[in-house]
Amino acid sequence: MTDFDYDFFVIGGGSGGVRAARLAAGLGKKVGIAEEYRYGGTCVIRGCVPKKLFVYASHFSEAFEDAAGFGWRVGETHFDWQTLIANKDREIARLEGLYRKGLSNAGAEIFDSRAELVDAHRVRILSTNRIVTADKILIAVGGRVNGADGLEGQELTISSNEAFHLETLPRSILIAGGGYIAVEFANIFHGMGVETTLIYRGTEILKNFDMDLRRTLHRTMEEKGIRILCEEVISKIVRSADQRLDVTTSGAKNLKIDQVMLAIGRIPNTDGLGLEAAGVETDSHGAVVVDEYMRTNVDNIFAVGDVTNRIQLTPVAIHEAMCLVETAFKDNPTSPDHDMVATAVFSQPEIGTVGLSEDAAMKQFDELEIYSATFRPMKHTLSGRQEKMITKLVVNAADRRVVGAHILGPDAGEMAQLLAVALKAGCTKDDFDRTMAVHPTAAEELVTMYQPTYRIKNGERLD
Amino acid sequence: MTDFDYDFFVIGGGSGGVRAARLAAGLGKKVGIAEEYRYGGTCVIRGCVPKKLFVYASHFSEAFEDAAGFGWRVGETHFDWQTLIANKDREIARLEGLYRKGLSNAGAEIFDSRAELVDAHRVRILSTNRIVTADKILIAVGGRVNGADGLEGQELTISSNEAFHLETLPRSILIAGGGYIAVEFANIFHGMGVETTLIYRGTEILKNFDMDLRRTLHRTMEEKGIRILCEEVISKIVRSADQRLDVTTSGAKNLKIDQVMLAIGRIPNTDGLGLEAAGVETDSHGAVVVDEYMRTNVDNIFAVGDVTNRIQLTPVAIHEAMCLVETAFKDNPTSPDHDMVATAVFSQPEIGTVGLSEDAAMKQFDELEIYSATFRPMKHTLSGRQEKMITKLVVNAADRRVVGAHILGPDAGEMAQLLAVALKAGCTKDDFDRTMAVHPTAAEELVTMYQPTYRIKNGERLD
Repeated sequence: MTDFDYDFFVIGGGSGGVRAARLAAGLGKKVGIAEEYRYGGTCVIRGCVPKKLFVYASHFSEAFEDAAGFGWRVGETHFDWQTLIANKDREIARLEGLYRKGLSNAGAEIFDSRAELVDAHRVRILSTNRIVTADKILIAVGGRVNGADGLEGQELTISSNEAFHLETLPRSILIAGGGYIAVEFANIFHGMGVETTLIYRGTEILKNFDMDLRRTLHRTMEEKGIRILCEEVISKIVRSADQRLDVTTSGAKNLKIDQVMLAIGRIPNTDGLGLEAAGVETDSHGAVVVDEYMRTNVDNIFAVGDVTNRIQLTPVAIHEAMCLVETAFKDNPTSPDHDMVATAVFSQPEIGTVGLSEDAAMKQFDELEIYSATFRPMKHTLSGRQEKMITKLVVNAADRRVVGAHILGPDAGEMAQLLAVALKAGCTKDDFDRTMAVHPTAAEELVTMYQPTYRIKNGERLD
Repeated sequence: MTDFDYDFFVIGGGSGGVRAARLAAGLGKKVGIAEEYRYGGTCVIRGCVPKKLFVYASHFSEAFEDAAGFGWRVGETHFDWQTLIANKDREIARLEGLYRKGLSNAGAEIFDSRAELVDAHRVRILSTNRIVTADKILIAVGGRVNGADGLEGQELTISSNEAFHLETLPRSILIAGGGYIAVEFANIFHGMGVETTLIYRGTEILKNFDMDLRRTLHRTMEEKGIRILCEEVISKIVRSADQRLDVTTSGAKNLKIDQVMLAIGRIPNTDGLGLEAAGVETDSHGAVVVDEYMRTNVDNIFAVGDVTNRIQLTPVAIHEAMCLVETAFKDNPTSPDHDMVATAVFSQPEIGTVGLSEDAAMKQFDELEIYSATFRPMKHTLSGRQEKMITKLVVNAADRRVVGAHILGPDAGEMAQLLAVALKAGCTKDDFDRTMAVHPTAAEELVTMYQPTYRIKNGERLD
């Protein structure tokens, strides 16, 4: 059919690359895929999946406390980090195996090697130094952890990568960053009994999320015992004689800490990938620039997922991969839909959100109705825990469409997923009002907020 | 304004009655409300609310087991029933107080008494034997537990009413019934360590729910150690010399049990209510017959909630009450909407459901697409628990509308609540397909089932 070794060669075995390779191979295309680390990518190997397993693990300490109000006496509990790591590693290995199996069952050829572009149709397999040719090439190499270049003592820090494999659980940890990774790990380590401090340059954690959720989560985390320093950064880290770390902050604080973890962002993983040799354009952050069909400036080279630095989420990479296969191999040009993407932060309590925050909506619409409820989840009436739950809908007054939905509380991620169906379909507040409550649930608050809590007109709040 | 003592008199202080009384009083009407037991009604006092608190309590035993896979060693645990009861009673008393406060703040007059109709405009307050007059009257007396008349030994049984107040937790219990109350209590008692048997006349538990969920829940409960006897009933109960109960079943089994609980249905609570004297029509089950505006055959007398024996759910009674106030006091005739009502069974695992089961949909539509996934919830990859989760969508092939959504698994009730918004708004399977997944959640399965699992045409399954 072609003079190339492969119809399709995929560089990167994460969520996007594997899905594209598997689907294309399933269509009878000759497909190769190369991954330098482990199949499954950030999500499966050192991201969403092990993170969520850690979240489950860290929840138990509160469950043991909560049990008392329900009549349970719980004997002494002990958390063993090594057991968690071993069980987590076994599960991740199982999942990696499923990814590999999916690829080989579909007929894709798997390379356990780094691969780099030589030119627009040639790829070097580094492990064997062999060069293969391909008609179409997909760059799906994802992102990598951003270091803090120039920070004195950076070599003493870890990132989330290492957090998944620490030999022992530290007694105390300082986490730098205010994004979801920093926030999730702060809750994880705290739940496992680690004395935890979060330090963040910005004014409030979780930039771009709805401010009510950001503030309430911040306060709740502090009430649990997590120390949060905002508008402050690490200025120096020194190993002290007792092997602990002496950390100095921009606010002139001196912290004695066992472990410092940086979670200050992720960047496209394009260094040394041969993009220049192949003529593939990148932006100032090193991200591969693509058009609406995920095509780079080089006709036969595509890119999906985190390497394009748009929405860095597993389901988005998978969706882009599916669209790409439609476009490139099924003669059905399909552009990915990046609108109304729901997301979750597996903090404790959890955040689930879809659509616009109140602040973002204010900039887009003249008049908003805000429906908001703050309440104690039913379970905590007996557990005695003081944590509050928030449910919030942002409605465009002009057409009654719900343009944002925000939840802070147990199972917020599950709720955001299904709210997303309604919001994506353009449901109005009237559709919510027409829906009968399911009692007793937390989600019923979302369909029983009949009167606006307040209105916003031209950026002004009217109470 | 009128010659009556009250503009509006409400008989029954449950969810429907309290809401109607409070709203009408809030409109400036002179309102009286009478309740013979405790304000809050079945839901708050001896239904949904204490039940859900029991469910939370009973969950902990599995949490203690699940913790091991996540690295936790848990010392000896002990469950103290009396602590749970005391804490539950305190919470129920608090909620009852809120109901009373809502009523008095709105200006309603509260009677702690049974009230009965004397005629179409007169109500007898039994505690004082005083007769009051009212322009409009609402019957919101709810339902009561159905006994098993003629069962030998019925006087030795309890109902859910008593289950909320048992002095001690029995070592073993036999629960008769296959509805949600029976199933929920079977899971509750089992989770508290009680040896539990469920006995049900029908062929499968939870009539009218989707068969996949019914069968899988049945099997899961058995795997936990709950004994389930279907197509069998209790034929005789005798107190034995050791104070335990000897139960004989229709299947000629002899069971030695500490407690027998009947959960074989609820009936309208209309006996002796004076309906005949007032000329209010009831059906053969004793339910008050109402038109689409909740009006009885007597012009000024209305009824909402369980006493009308339609959909016996708290939110439905509240919705009817809200519609009634619109109709009767705001000159805005509003008919309650009983279509697409989501509901949950707080079994373990939980059921959440909205719309038509596969079997019901088959009777309404020529061709269906069934999308179904059965999987292990992520948490159980480490806990080792073998329970499976089910997500299922029933789609009318002709117009792609999702006419039923069914979930078995953790948080199914929360999910059903938000699926209900989408289904009520008439969302199609394409709306689900267009929705980006939230990863890792269980609910993402509901938006990533791209291909039908099977189709059904004219009642025949096509694989």
